[in-house]
Amino acid sequence: MAYGYNGQILRVDLSKSSVSVERPDDNFYRTYLGGRGLIAYYLLKELGPGTDPLGPENKLIFATGVVTGAPVAGSGRNSVGARSPLTGAYGESEAGGFWGAEFKWTGYDALIVEGRAERPVYLWIHDGEVEIREAGHLWGQTTGQTQRAIRRELGDDKIRTAAIGPAGEHKVRYACVMNDLRHAAGRTGMGAVMGSKNLKAIAVRGRKKPAVADGQKVQAIAQWFARHCTELMGGLRDSGTAGRLLDLQVLGALPTHNFRQGVFAAAEQISGQTMRDTILVDRGTCYACPVRCKRTVQMEEPYPIDPAYGGPEYESVAALGSNCGIGDLAAIAKGNELCAAYGLDTISTGVSIAFAMECFERGFLTVGDTDGLQLTFGDAEVMLKLIGMIARREGFGNLLAEGVRRAAEEIGQGAAECAMHVKGQELPMHEPRLKQGMGLGYAVSPTGADHLQSMHDTEYVKDGPPLQEARALGLLEPVPMDDLGPAKVRLFLYLQHWNSLKNSLVMCIFVPYSFAQVVDIVNGVTGWNTTVWELMKVGERGTTMARAFNVREGLGLEDDHLPSRFSYPLTAGPLEGVAVGREEMQQAVATYYQMMGWDARAGTPTREKLHELGIGWVADELEKARQGVKSWPE
Amino acid sequence: MAYGYNGQILRVDLSKSSVSVERPDDNFYRTYLGGRGLIAYYLLKELGPGTDPLGPENKLIFATGVVTGAPVAGSGRNSVGARSPLTGAYGESEAGGFWGAEFKWTGYDALIVEGRAERPVYLWIHDGEVEIREAGHLWGQTTGQTQRAIRRELGDDKIRTAAIGPAGEHKVRYACVMNDLRHAAGRTGMGAVMGSKNLKAIAVRGRKKPAVADGQKVQAIAQWFARHCTELMGGLRDSGTAGRLLDLQVLGALPTHNFRQGVFAAAEQISGQTMRDTILVDRGTCYACPVRCKRTVQMEEPYPIDPAYGGPEYESVAALGSNCGIGDLAAIAKGNELCAAYGLDTISTGVSIAFAMECFERGFLTVGDTDGLQLTFGDAEVMLKLIGMIARREGFGNLLAEGVRRAAEEIGQGAAECAMHVKGQELPMHEPRLKQGMGLGYAVSPTGADHLQSMHDTEYVKDGPPLQEARALGLLEPVPMDDLGPAKVRLFLYLQHWNSLKNSLVMCIFVPYSFAQVVDIVNGVTGWNTTVWELMKVGERGTTMARAFNVREGLGLEDDHLPSRFSYPLTAGPLEGVAVGREEMQQAVATYYQMMGWDARAGTPTREKLHELGIGWVADELEKARQGVKSWPE
Repeated sequence: MAYGYNGQILRVDLSKSSVSVERPDDNFYRTYLGGRGLIAYYLLKELGPGTDPLGPENKLIFATGVVTGAPVAGSGRNSVGARSPLTGAYGESEAGGFWGAEFKWTGYDALIVEGRAERPVYLWIHDGEVEIREAGHLWGQTTGQTQRAIRRELGDDKIRTAAIGPAGEHKVRYACVMNDLRHAAGRTGMGAVMGSKNLKAIAVRGRKKPAVADGQKVQAIAQWFARHCTELMGGLRDSGTAGRLLDLQVLGALPTHNFRQGVFAAAEQISGQTMRDTILVDRGTCYACPVRCKRTVQMEEPYPIDPAYGGPEYESVAALGSNCGIGDLAAIAKGNELCAAYGLDTISTGVSIAFAMECFERGFLTVGDTDGLQLTFGDAEVMLKLIGMIARREGFGNLLAEGVRRAAEEIGQGAAECAMHVKGQELPMHEPRLKQGMGLGYAVSPTGADHLQSMHDTEYVKDGPPLQEARALGLLEPVPMDDLGPAKVRLFLYLQHWNSLKNSLVMCIFVPYSFAQVVDIVNGVTGWNTTVWELMKVGERGTTMARAFNVREGLGLEDDHLPSRFSYPLTAGPLEGVAVGREEMQQAVATYYQMMGWDARAGTPTREKLHELGIGWVADELEKARQGVKSWPE
Repeated sequence: MAYGYNGQILRVDLSKSSVSVERPDDNFYRTYLGGRGLIAYYLLKELGPGTDPLGPENKLIFATGVVTGAPVAGSGRNSVGARSPLTGAYGESEAGGFWGAEFKWTGYDALIVEGRAERPVYLWIHDGEVEIREAGHLWGQTTGQTQRAIRRELGDDKIRTAAIGPAGEHKVRYACVMNDLRHAAGRTGMGAVMGSKNLKAIAVRGRKKPAVADGQKVQAIAQWFARHCTELMGGLRDSGTAGRLLDLQVLGALPTHNFRQGVFAAAEQISGQTMRDTILVDRGTCYACPVRCKRTVQMEEPYPIDPAYGGPEYESVAALGSNCGIGDLAAIAKGNELCAAYGLDTISTGVSIAFAMECFERGFLTVGDTDGLQLTFGDAEVMLKLIGMIARREGFGNLLAEGVRRAAEEIGQGAAECAMHVKGQELPMHEPRLKQGMGLGYAVSPTGADHLQSMHDTEYVKDGPPLQEARALGLLEPVPMDDLGPAKVRLFLYLQHWNSLKNSLVMCIFVPYSFAQVVDIVNGVTGWNTTVWELMKVGERGTTMARAFNVREGLGLEDDHLPSRFSYPLTAGPLEGVAVGREEMQQAVATYYQMMGWDARAGTPTREKLHELGIGWVADELEKARQGVKSWPE
């Protein structure tokens, strides 16, 4: 019998200006689903070890999932993956908005971009057609200018774009890809890879809505969410992700002054509630989602802000704000707009600036190094100036454009102590001394420090909706916050599988679908008979493939640790005296390896585990690589 | 918040004549569910290593599951567990019928029997009341006489009994416990443990039907099955489990002459179809099941058979029939009735008799050893005579009552080659050279060779309903029959988890519920939000706890192998030339260990794996035992 899901993978070779299409079978989609699964599959299969992340041999993959574009909330997202120029490891980032759904409606599940165009180009994909178009006139333009120009020249205002700004063109190692100006695939430097290929944008417009096997089943969930989204997510609609900033402040865990403090004096002024009451002019959303958690901000003075770029998420507020000691919401919002326009990841940008400020404070940098700039915590003007310098790699900005790990190596002295990264990727705005499970996630995530690959411990310390739902996985007991014992590792492991599944589907992790509802969505769209078991295994498979990719690149145990800062206690606030035990974390990492079925010493997936996940071929890839591994390039 | 399932565990100490009741919390039930899960929990927690299986320190546990007694097919079963006197390992067996449901309605989920009564007793449990009653007058009686006497003296014809016959009293190592004369908890000698406690029977009558959280959900499944059971299981109704005997004959895999051949000349005469057309007088069933796969046979000549004892299943027909070279269905049916009346496991009985016949044929036994009996394959009279001698341990029967492993040690010479067992338990009637995954199951099952702990390879070699349903677990590809590679091990592993779950719930493995339907039944009864993930993990947990029990008793890798016979090819029939590769099987066992997260050398569950299953306490039990392990007694 012929099984259900019919999909297409689009492949564009920019060196050869060629386009081709592949049609994997249903079993392929069922094994990998999309997003994380597809990306890890193609990177493992098609990239040799030691591929230069910024060379033409790297492949840049835009992937949706089997449910993308279906009429339910959370299904508009897409992933972008490649070997990361920031970490040298597996690179992947997800973005919301409408681009993912629109791309899916062009008839494809994923796009693999290979090679490098001789001159700047953009792609125009519409209803199955693919054009590689000249983009010399767009080079140097912001993401906003780029989208406007493309819509004008193609004569369609409904075109969606995924584009890079000047940061991607200049191969800033944490350049991002922006969906429609305001939704960033922010992490691991996918924008730099896009820039290295001379690819400015991917414009899409589609009308091929894929078949849905059981429309009623899918509609029932959409209706359920429409009825309950205010009760479930009204807070997020009201004040956005930054609405939770004050909760972290109360817990003493708001990253401040480059993670040296957990309480920020001006927290009230930069909160989501203040944003709502001052500069917010509208609430944006993603495809098919009634929540409207996205922000649109606007102002004229002191900083003119174009509302087309949306508004800052929590991560951006804390990274550009408290972590740089900046309590000026207007400046933070402007910084956010600049990052969106230039195509910079706000987290890495903010952490890089905070890093520079600490180095300056401690004398590792002087005005002689910084083009005369005084890098002082709290100086909003300096922050804004540095964003532009980073995006264009101007002067001192060129150093920060390399990310904190490389910058610290260049600066020397004690700068490494100031570099808040894991595997070269700058830390998101979640304090590992509070959320120790999140810290474990930073340590072991294949993408380096990454909040979308981890868990929020705070939700599982006592009975409540998240833990009640987690019972569905057999997680029956609360786990204390500052615990890194086996019960926490187990909780992390199961939630990591589920997050990885969400990133394979590619679904929003905020929409609080039950496990059973996600099964219904997948089966409703595809006609499969999947279960939470199969979906959890897809998630585990994705994490394991990404790990295998990293093993092939020579990464291992020694790369799975937090910055040493977190093993020292905070010295003030509610978390005063709390640290992440260095040995406890080492033990948790080792426990995690064993629970994953990986070799306990190096964290290498065993051949048997790979077979258990139905991906024995990965063991063969690792074996091949063992015979001639090259180290990854700087 | 207080969670849902309210259960009670009944504990009876026969040494002290005391009765007590425990009320574990909802999390306990959700972690262990019942059956396998509960039994393994209590045996690990409460038995010291090296406990004499036939001593008062052993505990005999009758366990139902959380869905037992709910109004859906497959929910009438119960498990019986203890340290096995046959294997010295974890002992467990399941039985169908009505006893499980009736016991559940007395208000209890499980009964733990401890100690040893001074004189024979039976238990009378009715609506929460427990009486320990004198049973001297029942000692020596058949199971049928016992049930009739109890019903008469308690004045209730609807009483259900789980009883032993003379075999249990004589501690035949493979004595069984009979539910209502015709449903056997056959394997691992639980009847001998019951006999060692001077416990003749457990009579139950209950009217406390447990609450069902969502009656409609449960009813919908019952109605679905009522509508579809003929189409799904009509064949089983028509000719019983023995209806499949001819299929195995066609494949060349019908165990014949002590597993030396796979084709039996008289197969037609002993088939389920012949039974249907000759001696069948009625079709029996289990609680709430519309299938009626059980047989009731009756005759007068040449052997009077009491229909109260039902009729033979496939396992009994092949074990007492083809495997002993006996093509006389009347004799087989009589043998089945005798085993039911005396309380003997038909599989171990038949395999022990075939063992003796082969030893006799090869000269390892002579008439001097056998009380003058000529033990010739095909001699039905000898077979019937030996059943009585075994049950009463008369003469040569006393040796066979020890099971083939001990008998072979006693006989010496080449007798071990004739002893078809794993871990001391005699092989069920599934030829491992055909069903190599079943063979792997025999090798690694904690209970020794056991067909309820394994898989039927034949169902997964091509597309069809079983494989289509298995897709729900991510098992997407057919696996060839004679393959023992990693794909087969993975298939086995997942199905073993699910079988273990079924044995924890304690549900029938024949009723072809989808994975999703089992989830609905569990949630419908309990009000939980369980998923296939959580249920699979319960299954894995059960297998792992049983393994840990065995590790504590000193069992390991060297106990996980098939009899050497199966590494030699069959010499005739469709399977001519086919063997189970010895190295392939060793490799498969090692692969299985690794996929289970067990130590690859000894098959010991790692501490991390135990934590991943939420049972870190088992690691502590193993650690304690390591400090003073005793070997198990003969």
